[in-house]
Amino acid sequence: MKIQLALDRLTIAEAIHVASAASPFVDWIEVGTSLIKEFGMESIRAMRSAFPNHTILADMKTFDNAVYEMEICFQAGANVATVMGAAPLSTIQLCKQVADEQGAHLMIDLLSTNSEKRSTFAHMTDVTWCYHVSKDEQESQGSSASGIRVDGEMAGIHVAVAGGVRLGTIDELKSAGVDVVIVGTAITKADDVAKAAKEFSDAVRGQ
Amino acid sequence: MKIQLALDRLTIAEAIHVASAASPFVDWIEVGTSLIKEFGMESIRAMRSAFPNHTILADMKTFDNAVYEMEICFQAGANVATVMGAAPLSTIQLCKQVADEQGAHLMIDLLSTNSEKRSTFAHMTDVTWCYHVSKDEQESQGSSASGIRVDGEMAGIHVAVAGGVRLGTIDELKSAGVDVVIVGTAITKADDVAKAAKEFSDAVRGQ
Repeated sequence: MKIQLALDRLTIAEAIHVASAASPFVDWIEVGTSLIKEFGMESIRAMRSAFPNHTILADMKTFDNAVYEMEICFQAGANVATVMGAAPLSTIQLCKQVADEQGAHLMIDLLSTNSEKRSTFAHMTDVTWCYHVSKDEQESQGSSASGIRVDGEMAGIHVAVAGGVRLGTIDELKSAGVDVVIVGTAITKADDVAKAAKEFSDAVRGQ
Repeated sequence: MKIQLALDRLTIAEAIHVASAASPFVDWIEVGTSLIKEFGMESIRAMRSAFPNHTILADMKTFDNAVYEMEICFQAGANVATVMGAAPLSTIQLCKQVADEQGAHLMIDLLSTNSEKRSTFAHMTDVTWCYHVSKDEQESQGSSASGIRVDGEMAGIHVAVAGGVRLGTIDELKSAGVDVVIVGTAITKADDVAKAAKEFSDAVRGQ
């Protein structure tokens, strides 16, 4: 199971500072939607420059204009980008096409999708589905990502989980067969970022 | 009926150049999602500075993290911002709350919503619904915004229309009771931007 460090609601300098402390213990570094909308592609270029050897995920949350949005984030240095599963199928297909052309990877965010919608893109191989409890849902309803099982419609699909992931959730997510666990404030807002990241790493690697 | 000029797939300098030529003939200037994701909030600050007296719409397409995203775009100078109707209801409600607090206006993009989902936010007053045929749907299926009627579930709601709007569509949209017609490349890619914008203005104002 990989750890994806989600960087949100930070300046670019703060994001680099936090990611520097956590980087030895995480696999993927996510440039969050808030950084992208606040600072544009400069946020991705800065993270690529600071972390030349990490996988960088751009949380683009693309809903339209697929080719343009995918091209700018891959050109800026991202290896992985997100598209909303709730977007029109043509948008998801175009994102996949650009990712394939650029040797990059596509993550499909399942927020606000139902099984009928997911079945329209379930044939796509080599993508990751992101099972996602949104920040606003967490804060308004106290919900968080738990109880997931990677079976049924998700059997054989790479699955990431985001939304209120805490250290105590890791064992459940490992057992469930999750491929990527997305951790944000539990690391980025910790008093000791490196220590928190190492604890997640130890839990994930089973140490 | 108002005209909203959508600026997409341009540099900030190009966007200002195009909008300067069109500005006497349009009501709202939209900073498109592509500008926001490519250049961040600087794109909105630059348009606010260049057009201090126009209504500026930020096509944020917010899907989560409502308070943060709404606050940064209103602080950058936007008067109107978009949220996806497909987003969780809590996100839409939080966007409305911030817009109200800041004396701003919320546009709800109906892309990928069904009538059941729309009924969950149909009680919100003083918002605009954006009936939207996406760029990717236009290009892959040749579809465009037409055949809309502002009645039934949309009766009494402000409605904007986006997606392949051409000069020949204006009369139909006026008859249908549309409040805001969103025009992009039909103006921005015209050989003579000012002339194209004036033709839309004349058609809308009935001259």
